[in-house]
Amino acid sequence: MRLPMKQETALFVSSLLQELAAFGDDGNGGVTRLLYTPEWRNAQLFLAKKMEEQGLNTRFDRVGNLYGALQGTNRSGKAVLTGSHIDTVVSGGRYDGAYGIAAGLAALVYLKETYGDPLYTLELVSFCEEEGSRFPLAYWGSGNVTGLYEIGKADRIFDNSGVSLEAAMLGAGFGKPEQPESLRADIAAFVELHIEQGPVLERQRKRVGIVDAIVGQHRYAVTVHGEANHAGTTPMNMRKDALIGVSEMILQLEADALAAGEPLVATVGRIDCAPNTPNVVPGSVGFTVDIRHTDDRILSQFSESVLAKFKEIAIWRELDIQISPWLDTKSAPMNSQLIDRLEHISADLSLASRTIPSGAGHDAQLLTAVCPTAMLFVPSRAGISHSALEYTSAEELADGVSVLAALLYELAYEGKLP
Amino acid sequence: MRLPMKQETALFVSSLLQELAAFGDDGNGGVTRLLYTPEWRNAQLFLAKKMEEQGLNTRFDRVGNLYGALQGTNRSGKAVLTGSHIDTVVSGGRYDGAYGIAAGLAALVYLKETYGDPLYTLELVSFCEEEGSRFPLAYWGSGNVTGLYEIGKADRIFDNSGVSLEAAMLGAGFGKPEQPESLRADIAAFVELHIEQGPVLERQRKRVGIVDAIVGQHRYAVTVHGEANHAGTTPMNMRKDALIGVSEMILQLEADALAAGEPLVATVGRIDCAPNTPNVVPGSVGFTVDIRHTDDRILSQFSESVLAKFKEIAIWRELDIQISPWLDTKSAPMNSQLIDRLEHISADLSLASRTIPSGAGHDAQLLTAVCPTAMLFVPSRAGISHSALEYTSAEELADGVSVLAALLYELAYEGKLP
Repeated sequence: MRLPMKQETALFVSSLLQELAAFGDDGNGGVTRLLYTPEWRNAQLFLAKKMEEQGLNTRFDRVGNLYGALQGTNRSGKAVLTGSHIDTVVSGGRYDGAYGIAAGLAALVYLKETYGDPLYTLELVSFCEEEGSRFPLAYWGSGNVTGLYEIGKADRIFDNSGVSLEAAMLGAGFGKPEQPESLRADIAAFVELHIEQGPVLERQRKRVGIVDAIVGQHRYAVTVHGEANHAGTTPMNMRKDALIGVSEMILQLEADALAAGEPLVATVGRIDCAPNTPNVVPGSVGFTVDIRHTDDRILSQFSESVLAKFKEIAIWRELDIQISPWLDTKSAPMNSQLIDRLEHISADLSLASRTIPSGAGHDAQLLTAVCPTAMLFVPSRAGISHSALEYTSAEELADGVSVLAALLYELAYEGKLP
Repeated sequence: MRLPMKQETALFVSSLLQELAAFGDDGNGGVTRLLYTPEWRNAQLFLAKKMEEQGLNTRFDRVGNLYGALQGTNRSGKAVLTGSHIDTVVSGGRYDGAYGIAAGLAALVYLKETYGDPLYTLELVSFCEEEGSRFPLAYWGSGNVTGLYEIGKADRIFDNSGVSLEAAMLGAGFGKPEQPESLRADIAAFVELHIEQGPVLERQRKRVGIVDAIVGQHRYAVTVHGEANHAGTTPMNMRKDALIGVSEMILQLEADALAAGEPLVATVGRIDCAPNTPNVVPGSVGFTVDIRHTDDRILSQFSESVLAKFKEIAIWRELDIQISPWLDTKSAPMNSQLIDRLEHISADLSLASRTIPSGAGHDAQLLTAVCPTAMLFVPSRAGISHSALEYTSAEELADGVSVLAALLYELAYEGKLP
């Protein structure tokens, strides 16, 4: 295939992202678009208008996912989808989610202008919600499409102000008459383009990251009990210092994670000490453990092994330990044929690429349940995301569009479904 | 000398402690007597009455320290003092401070009944404040006697309710007309008997602890800055995890403290992590370091050495570190001649003893500035103090009285001043 003009694409995507950032602009360079708020609604309506201007047939589904379609000539009813999500975290960046939609529109416009109608219907989707920033759930958009969620349960879910998901949805003009829909069985492939939200591509000077899998996650809450004692009158060898025991566990976790190697990551992000007073030996310490890997078997083995070592440390130091698992999500491997094609495409375009795990969750992981799925990353400056400082250069934004357009061409125009 | 009857003494001290515990009884076995409160005032008045019943001449000084004296026959004007403090922490125990006063009264009564008037005036003191639990200072009682504090500055010190130390003092009937006094230049020796507030005597089955020095203390506030990053998308080798760096410092501190050996103790009692979120690599961690030793030179060397190692760990892990000293108190050695005498007395009484550092501060450390000073400990069950669970058996309480009475006999009756 021919290539989209790089400068033109860069300008198109950058301009669209800048226009979108006006919806929920927090005045400090950040963006806040929470599900079903006026900012969110106006952004979806703006996107629908943009899609229509570019000749796409648009529709909103029951929960407010927005689709813009190029009708296929083939009557199979199969559709190839690309897109991402329109919502943000509080004071999020301009690229997370929005980039996948702007890039998708650029790709569809280019393909239509260059090659006319596709064989299989080609659709751009702007999922209504992915971040989990307003209601205590995430992936509401793709979750309704793939059957993870049922719209009927929206009356039992509330935001921090006590507004139900259903009430918010009705307020934004979605839901009811008389519900269902959203589920789709016609998707032949899904491709999501996203910023990396990590430092790997930038540090390794890669232009494109080809996601091999979205990681599974195990999270644990650990509590260690020792003895709170007077810091002056208790000799070192008569102490049961919970914080020292936990320090040893934290270093053990790091050592084991480094030994396991990528893509394993393990983090103690939260620690709470009691009584947390300078002159008292810590009596109890609670902390969280977050472990991620693209291979669920390795993830489980690693978790079991390191938690067993925590218990040994506790025994050795005469501390009590309680470990409670509180999150266990499975990894979502991307389609291997699509990974191969993306590697070839990147090489053909002379874009340095690498396969990369996605350490964060994305809509793509839900789509793996219903169709062959691929996911692409472009670099994030300094790995920063969920922040006003989130940034990817216009040239890098255009790189992503080139790879995405090439894959969509193979899928929807050449009809090479995996 | 003859010995006080053990059972009689045990009963006397236990009963007096039980009566005292009624003043500020918090209903859960704990006691709260904060400086210049009605509970505190009633307890001091009760003690004055008890002292008078036992034939002591009582007086309150300007700040509310209570003295009960057995007048000496020698006209030198020198006085031998024993006693401790009447105030408590919030929900403190029945023995901390109060025991030294009850035991002192038992000793004076026994000596007077057995030997009549002393050569040097023998005084029991109930210092008004030691704990620092109401106002942001400690040792108000002994500090006024030894010149650490000036009563005139009481109008610039406030409790959490905004009441000035002066107003509280006046409200309790002390201070003004027209101030000074409290300073004493006539004290020939001071002996303080106290519960250990630590586990050493109980674990080592010693009946008496002879304090060789009250420790000096260094305290530091340390802040370590790394980079807050996404726990999923940041590979292990691209992190600057402040909590892992701090964990290494905590283990370094423990290792060095164990290597230095007793009486050095070192504690990280407080730790605060930011942003303290399960799925974010810790960006910064603050913690406190409390280091104590009876030898100021060793204390300083140890502190410098371990803080230098903290800095090396920070450099190695590419973290920023700031270290702020916020407390530096000197150690207070007890009088060596009095230590020797206490060892002989304990041996003569067949009470297993050991010299022991005091890891906590006491009025005795202030008295070292003005006179030869000695300090004695009896065991604390499980090392517990500042708690309703504080406990020392009646027999152990009586042991302390025996040793104290014997030393006071040598000092005040035999006139053997150090």
